[in-house]
Amino acid sequence: MSNFVAINRIYCREDYRARFEQLFATRAHAIDRMPGFLGMQVLRPQRDGEPYLVVSFWESKEAFEAWTGSPEFLEGHRRGFEDVRRAREQGQEPPMRSEFVTYDVIAR
Amino acid sequence: MSNFVAINRIYCREDYRARFEQLFATRAHAIDRMPGFLGMQVLRPQRDGEPYLVVSFWESKEAFEAWTGSPEFLEGHRRGFEDVRRAREQGQEPPMRSEFVTYDVIAR
Repeated sequence: MSNFVAINRIYCREDYRARFEQLFATRAHAIDRMPGFLGMQVLRPQRDGEPYLVVSFWESKEAFEAWTGSPEFLEGHRRGFEDVRRAREQGQEPPMRSEFVTYDVIAR
Repeated sequence: MSNFVAINRIYCREDYRARFEQLFATRAHAIDRMPGFLGMQVLRPQRDGEPYLVVSFWESKEAFEAWTGSPEFLEGHRRGFEDVRRAREQGQEPPMRSEFVTYDVIAR
């Protein structure tokens, strides 16, 4: 049962949205191998100005933190990180920025 | 399978947090009777300044919208709505405010 939820809020440049969605439609599934990982959902907001949400469900905070320090984390983000790196090298604004917010599940 | 997610962001006054959590720990479960309802989670943020999130998972947007217009919606929110009404009658700031944001699930 999911006791811990991490939400990655992703603010995408308009011209990067199709690429962003394609990255997740073809995601690496590296995270699926992590102990304590229970599932994820990628959420497209129905209101302008809201970020995409990448929601992952975990057995515990420790399981989530083990993932963020793992080779699977790098593998799962490789193409996105590369897009951001390339934009920076070319002096452009990064195509997306993101921030994690974490939560305890207190009721169901 | 969940194709649609609604997130109710709830900003609670500090002195109302214990009451808010207790309302959900003893929730009416009226929503559980709605066709197309797949589950919910109440999320307490681990970072100050972030709202609580009440996340509900639905088969479709139509199922969610049927709920927001239903007697079950009023039944499920009765005690919270009453707390807000009482504060307003006494000229106080409402103990919480909330806003729904809705999402399509585009990947898992």
